[in-house]
Amino acid sequence: MLALVYDKQATIGDDYPAPAASEGEVIVGVRMAGICRTDLEILKGYMGFGGVMGHEFVGVVVEGPPRWMDKRVVAEINCVCGQCDMCLSGLSNHCRNRTVLGIDGRDGAFAEFIAVPQANLHELPDQITDVEAVFVEPLAAAFQIIRQVEIARPDRVVVLGDGRLGQLAARVLKMHTDNLLLVGKHATKLEAAEKQGIQTARVGDFAADKQADVVVDATGTASGFQLAMQTVRPRGQIVLKSTFAAGSETNFAPLVIDEITVIGSRCGPFSEAIRALAAKDPAVGGVDITALVSARYPLRDGLAALAAAGQSDTLKVVLDVSP
Amino acid sequence: MLALVYDKQATIGDDYPAPAASEGEVIVGVRMAGICRTDLEILKGYMGFGGVMGHEFVGVVVEGPPRWMDKRVVAEINCVCGQCDMCLSGLSNHCRNRTVLGIDGRDGAFAEFIAVPQANLHELPDQITDVEAVFVEPLAAAFQIIRQVEIARPDRVVVLGDGRLGQLAARVLKMHTDNLLLVGKHATKLEAAEKQGIQTARVGDFAADKQADVVVDATGTASGFQLAMQTVRPRGQIVLKSTFAAGSETNFAPLVIDEITVIGSRCGPFSEAIRALAAKDPAVGGVDITALVSARYPLRDGLAALAAAGQSDTLKVVLDVSP
Repeated sequence: MLALVYDKQATIGDDYPAPAASEGEVIVGVRMAGICRTDLEILKGYMGFGGVMGHEFVGVVVEGPPRWMDKRVVAEINCVCGQCDMCLSGLSNHCRNRTVLGIDGRDGAFAEFIAVPQANLHELPDQITDVEAVFVEPLAAAFQIIRQVEIARPDRVVVLGDGRLGQLAARVLKMHTDNLLLVGKHATKLEAAEKQGIQTARVGDFAADKQADVVVDATGTASGFQLAMQTVRPRGQIVLKSTFAAGSETNFAPLVIDEITVIGSRCGPFSEAIRALAAKDPAVGGVDITALVSARYPLRDGLAALAAAGQSDTLKVVLDVSP
Repeated sequence: MLALVYDKQATIGDDYPAPAASEGEVIVGVRMAGICRTDLEILKGYMGFGGVMGHEFVGVVVEGPPRWMDKRVVAEINCVCGQCDMCLSGLSNHCRNRTVLGIDGRDGAFAEFIAVPQANLHELPDQITDVEAVFVEPLAAAFQIIRQVEIARPDRVVVLGDGRLGQLAARVLKMHTDNLLLVGKHATKLEAAEKQGIQTARVGDFAADKQADVVVDATGTASGFQLAMQTVRPRGQIVLKSTFAAGSETNFAPLVIDEITVIGSRCGPFSEAIRALAAKDPAVGGVDITALVSARYPLRDGLAALAAAGQSDTLKVVLDVSP
């Protein structure tokens, strides 16, 4: 089958073996997939991953039990054992023995077919288009923020980073606070948020003043985390959505001096993301992602798509796999 | 008066002007003071501090209202405005306009006399010796941990760092968990903890396995924080008691992947520290610090005392100021 594979370098080829379904799994014919920052990190060696890339996707079940056959689905990315201490304590996303679609020990979705545990599947309602469905996984990660942090209407919330994840985080947080600010570097990206009624600021115009109750750091940079520490109030919370490589100049003293809490945040609830994408209208708890798609490429042009996704002014790049 | 002053370098001299009490302040005749890691950081330029060093001390009020005259006291180190948003929301330790004894904008305790706001004073019961009283401030910082993190008896708690603060943290945490481990580098320091019934491990023998519910990082090093991330379980908590300069090799990905919460922790409740030092016996909620004093120096030999406190095998170094 056609697949975009990373093995020390990314390649596209027609001869990758199609997956076989293990017990409890289905085979999904992939229709569309999205490129995420994690995919770009994998190109730099992240997780030491090798195999078919990709974890944001929508497809149709082509092999599996009647319950799932022909259903249009998205799939949670953590494939778990159900037996370890994490699984048994309700934290199966942190399964000690997990594999992760296209990230850790398991082939992903930049291919014609993918094998997925049935337990990971979510059937999609008709109101959600394929393009929207590609956003279920990252939007779920944005919803995870409000599962981990309690936010009240008057709370001052600042999202740092106007990229894909920052955009989605801002859309979710706008439903929970009347004081939201998205800070970014890119005029076109900030405009996409402003169209959703989100207040924005260019980072050069933003004066960090230790007043925010909650800061979401979606910058993926050490300087972004430094700015987060200067933006949050004493005893406030920083939600860390994307990790960073610390430079030797990074000063972590504010964490202790201001007794800041940093909350690492990864995967989230698919059901809430599906509900929000189906609703679409922010006035009724929906999330509108139409402004977030920068480009679509056929899977065969996946290498060009990866290059495009790495450009600083790009939001979501989508791969068309099969109709 | 005799004072140990930092002004780009540390000096001892007899001619430092004695303090005058501003409104609401008393003058305390210092009897004894302790050297803390923060003092050693100040010698490297931390906080850009200049003035009399020192913030852990015990003394007797020599000038002030009858309520306080001749009382033996310790003093909280944050001198606050009472007016700002932090003070008004009950977070006065984070006062926007604070000065901090011997750390930020205000002379400290390595001197014959110190001016202190009355509001900061705590009278000492007779059961607490002067040496013990020097531990009130750092022990309060250790008690802060259990104000910020809920710990249940079966929880696995690991303290990283066998220095002054790690030792005190372990003594406090031992009252709250049946699964405490103190990990350090120094045989003599670990022995001091073992005498209190605290289980210890040399860092070379310690296999980090992502199983601890709570890790207290009192190492003050990037490698210590890295070890903390490898020791805590997914969704677990790291209490950061001492800050560190990140090396460029520091990998923060586990914070996001394992959704770790990092809680910065600074000053704590003096009243609880005083109660515990008065009780002494761990069996009744007391804290015994006798094994933690490595050396005593007269204030006049303060520079030698600072050098001694900087040695890796030293625990608390105490300065005798006046009898």
